[in-house]
Amino acid sequence: MSTEHADDRADHEAGVREVATRARTASHDLALATRATKDAALHAMADALLAQAPAVLAANAEDVRRAEEAGTPAHIIDRLRLTDDRLEAMAAGLREVAGLADPVGEVVRGSTLANGLELRQLRVPFGVVGMIYEARPNVTADAAGICLKSGNAVLLRGSSSARSSNAAIVEVLREAVVTAGLPADVVQLVPGDSHDSVKALMRARGLVDVLIPRGGAGLIRSVVEESTVPVIETGVGNCHVYVDASADLDQALAIVVNSKTHRTSVCNAAESLLVHEDVADDFLPTVIDALRAHDVTIHGDEAFAEYDDVVAATEADHATEYLSSDISAAVVADVEAAIAHIRRFSSGHTEAIVARDQATIRRFVAAVDSAAVMVNASTRFTDGGEFGFGAEIGISTQKLHARGPMGLPEMTSTKYVVVGEGHVR
Amino acid sequence: MSTEHADDRADHEAGVREVATRARTASHDLALATRATKDAALHAMADALLAQAPAVLAANAEDVRRAEEAGTPAHIIDRLRLTDDRLEAMAAGLREVAGLADPVGEVVRGSTLANGLELRQLRVPFGVVGMIYEARPNVTADAAGICLKSGNAVLLRGSSSARSSNAAIVEVLREAVVTAGLPADVVQLVPGDSHDSVKALMRARGLVDVLIPRGGAGLIRSVVEESTVPVIETGVGNCHVYVDASADLDQALAIVVNSKTHRTSVCNAAESLLVHEDVADDFLPTVIDALRAHDVTIHGDEAFAEYDDVVAATEADHATEYLSSDISAAVVADVEAAIAHIRRFSSGHTEAIVARDQATIRRFVAAVDSAAVMVNASTRFTDGGEFGFGAEIGISTQKLHARGPMGLPEMTSTKYVVVGEGHVR
Repeated sequence: MSTEHADDRADHEAGVREVATRARTASHDLALATRATKDAALHAMADALLAQAPAVLAANAEDVRRAEEAGTPAHIIDRLRLTDDRLEAMAAGLREVAGLADPVGEVVRGSTLANGLELRQLRVPFGVVGMIYEARPNVTADAAGICLKSGNAVLLRGSSSARSSNAAIVEVLREAVVTAGLPADVVQLVPGDSHDSVKALMRARGLVDVLIPRGGAGLIRSVVEESTVPVIETGVGNCHVYVDASADLDQALAIVVNSKTHRTSVCNAAESLLVHEDVADDFLPTVIDALRAHDVTIHGDEAFAEYDDVVAATEADHATEYLSSDISAAVVADVEAAIAHIRRFSSGHTEAIVARDQATIRRFVAAVDSAAVMVNASTRFTDGGEFGFGAEIGISTQKLHARGPMGLPEMTSTKYVVVGEGHVR
Repeated sequence: MSTEHADDRADHEAGVREVATRARTASHDLALATRATKDAALHAMADALLAQAPAVLAANAEDVRRAEEAGTPAHIIDRLRLTDDRLEAMAAGLREVAGLADPVGEVVRGSTLANGLELRQLRVPFGVVGMIYEARPNVTADAAGICLKSGNAVLLRGSSSARSSNAAIVEVLREAVVTAGLPADVVQLVPGDSHDSVKALMRARGLVDVLIPRGGAGLIRSVVEESTVPVIETGVGNCHVYVDASADLDQALAIVVNSKTHRTSVCNAAESLLVHEDVADDFLPTVIDALRAHDVTIHGDEAFAEYDDVVAATEADHATEYLSSDISAAVVADVEAAIAHIRRFSSGHTEAIVARDQATIRRFVAAVDSAAVMVNASTRFTDGGEFGFGAEIGISTQKLHARGPMGLPEMTSTKYVVVGEGHVR
């Protein structure tokens, strides 16, 4: 490592620690802010995004131009691009968060102990949340809104391809929160474009309370492995649909097609299909036709590969989160074989069973250890919006703290308050 | 690093991965075991510990002899030593856990969504829990019991000084769980004595779901920094008692003395005393006398240091968890100064305020961000037993997942089960 690089890294670390320290200080005020103040700030943020639309769109145009010059693929440029409609949606999202209940202060447990001590366990904000995310600049406003409502100061580290957009959005949001009487530093960008600044954020234990990476599997893995700050792992989904011998095959067809094709680039899309051997002869021709009609490439085991246009699956296929019009497929002997396959290959996001037999359903639900298990429903329902949470910061695929779609309550910790009158042991 | 050491490390890693894989398989059965089966196993474990007392005590005698030969301090040997009474207490602890409600399967949230989907969020076991702990062999039985009841297979890594005791206890417990129809591998020792086996455990992400270190600050820091497996940080407590101007000074005296002297080696003992300047002249002579009567050394600021036998405090004193008959002490201008001092030095375990003024109490409770805030009560009440949890695996001082005393529910994750009738988006 050159001395220059070492200097850069030290600079990044100092810069990140400085914004994190400011966030910590600001979080003390935010933690005590009333819901009325926080909601006023959220509406001010929404108003400001619309009022400052020209500046934000101009900044975004710079990012888009840079991406085009760099030869970025069109679908990534599409995710990067902001429009009046997308700004309206960001503003609407902030107003929706304002409409949600404030999780802070909720009493989640309470009792009077035998000795007369009054015990309450209350929801409190984490303090400072770090978000590391990829291309979409709308995440900047979404994350800022959810963190603010849950009482957390946020440090935002978007991708460098969206740096002008993110800087403009954060500038607008910071001005807006101040008009509501909150410190600007409750919303900050992490300075620096290089990976060193991400590294510094991951090492800011004690200043940052939790890190939430949102993006591809590579990003998430690197944060999980390198961070000393506690991490909530999100969103890698190798989701399975298992069609049992007892399934209503019309339902099964609709669920498989919806799970795979409704939107292919999302973590709750199905990536693997398992079919009970007793219905294989009936179901395989139909499901293969239907998926083909949606331009889905099927990577099948031997049973599937007997049909036209099915590609022979490798072991790796069964483990892959395609995020594309591809699906791996296999015929299994029974529900136990389906469970064993899922235990081996699943990422623990969402698995679905289509079945009518109650004992089989009960066994599948009990034995499959994923964030969500769907019974006769599409994998696409694993979503904070669909679950009625109103806002979602991501979908946790880890077991600590939160699992599945994370709404506002999942963005809090708790503390015990114990009231006595001179109690000693 | 020598080649030999590299080979050793590879051996340790293979050994740890092998037991973790066996634990994972065993956890599938344990996760589905009924409460009746688990309780039968706990009683069998208690019976076996007493029936096999001679073998366990003989193994313990080896550890004690080795410790004596190594010149280990008497108080550490005392913690290491098992007696018939201590075995009885371990057995009683297991029976107590059998008497507690089973957290697995508890519905923590449920609703029917607008589209008719039935949503339930259920408690499920983590799967495989790793425990890393220091000298006391009774933790071996306690942790095994709590993990078993919460449906988790456990990998136990005690200190090498207790290796014969731990091996004997685990052998007895494994035989007992088999008699209840559970796989022996729900309780296992991590093989290997060196730090390499701890390292391998910390890197077994995907095989081990959560690591809980219990012990000194150094152990916990190293696990937190090196582990890629999610960690629940426990038990470092630099706990403060703040005596406000509005305090009942008799209550304050009792609470300070109890918090400091009831047991000095525990994480919920007070390590720092803060006194409002308006009551300093009244309170300091009394509290200094009372603490001195308990042989407590006071490391005081300038105001305290004016009194006899008070040692001048350094900055480091205010940050220290003594775990001994020492306390740091300072006079503060008001509750805001007390809050600022706590924010700067506290480890976030437990802080207490002694006060009668409601606004001051409200301010302290809201602004102090610790796992537990005591109002007119001793810091010693932050404890799973005192809180009525019946069993405690440790006291979490982190904000993710669990904060404060951790009972059986804190040893679980959740999963969503969503039931439809062919629902698609």
